[in-house]
Amino acid sequence: MELLKERIRRDGKIKDGKIIKVDGFLNHQIDINLINEIGKEFKRLFNEEKITKIITIEASGIAIACLAAQYFNVPIVFAKKSESKNIDGDVYRTTVTSYTRGKDYTVILEKRYLTSDDRILIIDDILATGKAQLGLLDISEQAGATVAGIGIVIEKGFQGGGDKLRKAGYNVQSLAIIDSMENKTLKFR
Amino acid sequence: MELLKERIRRDGKIKDGKIIKVDGFLNHQIDINLINEIGKEFKRLFNEEKITKIITIEASGIAIACLAAQYFNVPIVFAKKSESKNIDGDVYRTTVTSYTRGKDYTVILEKRYLTSDDRILIIDDILATGKAQLGLLDISEQAGATVAGIGIVIEKGFQGGGDKLRKAGYNVQSLAIIDSMENKTLKFR
Repeated sequence: MELLKERIRRDGKIKDGKIIKVDGFLNHQIDINLINEIGKEFKRLFNEEKITKIITIEASGIAIACLAAQYFNVPIVFAKKSESKNIDGDVYRTTVTSYTRGKDYTVILEKRYLTSDDRILIIDDILATGKAQLGLLDISEQAGATVAGIGIVIEKGFQGGGDKLRKAGYNVQSLAIIDSMENKTLKFR
Repeated sequence: MELLKERIRRDGKIKDGKIIKVDGFLNHQIDINLINEIGKEFKRLFNEEKITKIITIEASGIAIACLAAQYFNVPIVFAKKSESKNIDGDVYRTTVTSYTRGKDYTVILEKRYLTSDDRILIIDDILATGKAQLGLLDISEQAGATVAGIGIVIEKGFQGGGDKLRKAGYNVQSLAIIDSMENKTLKFR
């Protein structure tokens, strides 16, 4: 998606060779017009998939999932990172290792909101090693839901998570795949 | 907002006299069409306020803030609940006590994304004692931003947070105010 790549080139900040900060438009401050175009692009890419629900994980996936969901006209459900007094139903649980936070955490999703009748689209902002996505796939498998696709805004191709998921048979569509950030120079696939 | 009150009556689940679960449509599973109507209603209520930015707190405020932001055509910024390798700038910090989670946590917002030039609308899903909103007001004060309004989907009027904010001079607009849930019966203001 050219509009997105241009924006990453202009506003992305490369740190430490492996991390790219895109929090001026994607995951801290959010440029609504850009995310709306991203939502339309996901609709175009997964239009034939008869999606019944969009699944993501808090927090930065929520904005993208919501704006996409408008075009699919389906509900979203986001997996939550911690327990609260407001969770009382039967839940699916999985453990996710966060690369940027450097720790493991548990995410939960109430069973009533994901079932074997669902054909889901998993949406997230960043795919690096794929840990967050594996967590959502684990929950989807527990639910018996069909994973019709995985839509990612920025894939860090050099960390390998996306290609592992493709090899496992998933329909992964990333709107921008960064294959290298060496010498602070972005190379897109 | 009648559409919202009907939905709360139909799908809200009262627990323990003080907590109402609305996670079938508002803050776990999200009904995009309803949240879109909520976004339009916030635009109607704050239309004259020359909002430059919408501010919320992760995670459940993000969906509502994003769908509202489309109608205001402004960016959103969400305060984050924890540090990550992706935060490196100068940040505003504040402490919030979560009623539903029963603990204190720190939220941060990068200084570059909120300044004294901003006229902000604070948006959140639930207003109870007002702790989360006070955190965002503290951050706004640190930034020197002007708080043009506070838009809330569901205010639990019997917990007093909303009226305290109104007494302090803020323009608080809640789309549904629950004044009592005694005997599992909802009374709206």
